[in-house]
Amino acid sequence: MKAINWKEIPATVPMAGLSKRVAIGPEIGAFNFVMRIFEMQPGITSPHHSHSWEHEIYVIDGCGTALNHDGEKTTIQKGDVIFIPPQEMHSLANTGTAALQFICLVPADGDK
Amino acid sequence: MKAINWKEIPATVPMAGLSKRVAIGPEIGAFNFVMRIFEMQPGITSPHHSHSWEHEIYVIDGCGTALNHDGEKTTIQKGDVIFIPPQEMHSLANTGTAALQFICLVPADGDK
Repeated sequence: MKAINWKEIPATVPMAGLSKRVAIGPEIGAFNFVMRIFEMQPGITSPHHSHSWEHEIYVIDGCGTALNHDGEKTTIQKGDVIFIPPQEMHSLANTGTAALQFICLVPADGDK
Repeated sequence: MKAINWKEIPATVPMAGLSKRVAIGPEIGAFNFVMRIFEMQPGITSPHHSHSWEHEIYVIDGCGTALNHDGEKTTIQKGDVIFIPPQEMHSLANTGTAALQFICLVPADGDK
């Protein structure tokens, strides 16, 4: 068993305004699916993209929008859970004034 | 894409003092791993047990302890991530005065 506060985990910066922490992954024996935690700064939008794996998301704090394959925006905020199926076009945006913090889980192959 | 606040999801009661919501699961197309959200009331402890699948846990709110296979207790609280490998004996307890709310993800076979 391993327990740690997510903010103590070292972060990487996959794009400007977005930090990523691998909270639970293969390095500690989680070989099926990976828990990543992202912090997106206000005004930042992730690229609209798709891939062969799903996302299971939980919004820790902040608010924003999720854009789906039809270009429809859904407001997201603290406490929301979001499922994005494999192959669906999607992006997230922070439309608030504080960091948008969210957990995003993927199958292990989706984090390689 | 599906988005909902976790508190709007109907809950079941697997044991007294513990509610469970399947936030993301096979019913909405998540076939690899399942996001469940639990609320454990103060004073409640889950059975000390093990199984062939792992847990990936995120503590939304509250505080408590996690007991491992050696009988060692780790304090857990809001913002902690916890990994429990397959086959490891474990239990969680709410030692605080408010509900212990936590996400617990398992491979799909672990929620059947």
